[in-house]
Formats: sequence, structure tokens, C-alpha cells
Amino acid sequence: MPEDDCIFCKIAAGHVPSQKVYEDGEVVAFPDIHPLAPVHLLVIPRRHVGALADADGDSRALAGRCFAAAVEVAYAAGLAEGGYRLVANQGANAGQEVAHLHIHVLGGRSLGSLG
Amino acid sequence: MPEDDCIFCKIAAGHVPSQKVYEDGEVVAFPDIHPLAPVHLLVIPRRHVGALADADGDSRALAGRCFAAAVEVAYAAGLAEGGYRLVANQGANAGQEVAHLHIHVLGGRSLGSLG
Repeated sequence: MPEDDCIFCKIAAGHVPSQKVYEDGEVVAFPDIHPLAPVHLLVIPRRHVGALADADGDSRALAGRCFAAAVEVAYAAGLAEGGYRLVANQGANAGQEVAHLHIHVLGGRSLGSLG
Repeated sequence: MPEDDCIFCKIAAGHVPSQKVYEDGEVVAFPDIHPLAPVHLLVIPRRHVGALADADGDSRALAGRCFAAAVEVAYAAGLAEGGYRLVANQGANAGQEVAHLHIHVLGGRSLGSLG
């Protein structure tokens, strides 16, 4: 179920505009509004999955499909040759900012440390 | 097929010792030998998948299963509450060091920038 105050649920549903770069029945991808690299995209499940840490088997499998989609998204964005990083943050120590599962796709420059 | 000179193929096959923290028929997890955080684990497919960027559909799906397993690995490592980061690096711009798909599980401290 969508969460009323979740910005990513609204983007997935099209209630908040975004320039979607990928979508299928389960997954949507769009640019991060605060990019940290020349290419910075977010891949999210349409369904609200809050804490990755609390995800049941179905949600973990959906997270895995987002990850597989992120590889396609990176390829479509032209990042395959130069390289890219896929990142999922969970909770406070990782600096997760929106409580709807999302995978960052970062590329277009030489990236720094993992964290 | 295992690659003769791939260290992660050797670890998966048990030909190089590691302290496995998770394994199933497709996936193995073990500590990074150069940890960047108090907890730093690697999750890999048993099968050699080289470049994530070149992965076909089967390999992307396997990458997704590694990602889902990484969530379990993080939970088992006690990282669910404090938070953690899952990272996959592809190619030069990301600083990928071993050409066998691997997902980093980082936690145990407040992590820095995504890259």
C-alpha cells in the first residue's frame, strides 16, 4: 500500500512529477534531485518497502529485482564502460534519508571510498 | 565455470580458506580481508560473474539474489538496528578490485558519503 506521506510512493504513482528513466510493473527509476555525481539515479520498487532491514522474504526478493533493474538502468545511462556504483543505505549509520527502499546508481566520474 | 585465477571462485569452492558467514546453493558471504568498517562482509555468487555491466538476464537475476542474501547477512551480523550500506562496484570509475561480482556489506559505524 502507498504511504500517504512518502515522496517515493507519490513519484512511483505519478502524483509527483519525475523524469522516469525506467519503469516496469514493479520498479521505477528517476534522477536523484540532489545528485552526488554526473549521473545519479534512484531505483525504487513501486510498492512501499520501508526498512530493508525488516523486509520479509517477498520484500527482499523485490529488493533483488530492483538491484537487477539497476544494472539495466546503468547500462541504459551509458555507464557500463566507465563503471558505476550501486548503493543501498539502511538506517541511521548509512545516512538513509527517505524511508522507501531505493538503490542509488552513481557514475560519470571516478568515485571515492565506499563509506 | 570457475575462473582459474579468480580468488573469489577459489573461496566459493573452499580452495582458499575463509570464514564463511552465510552460504546457500548459489551465494557465499565472508569477511573482506581489508575491512573499511567494523563490519565489512562480501556477498558473492558461487558462479563466476565477471562484469556486472555485461551480465545477461540470468546473471542479473543472480546478482539480485546476492543482494537479497546481503540483507539476510546484514541482519545476521546484527546491523539491522544501527544501519548498514550495501555497495556493488562496477569497473574503473567505481574502483572495482576483483573481477567477480561482489556486494559489500558495511556497518558498525556512521558511514560517510556514497562516493
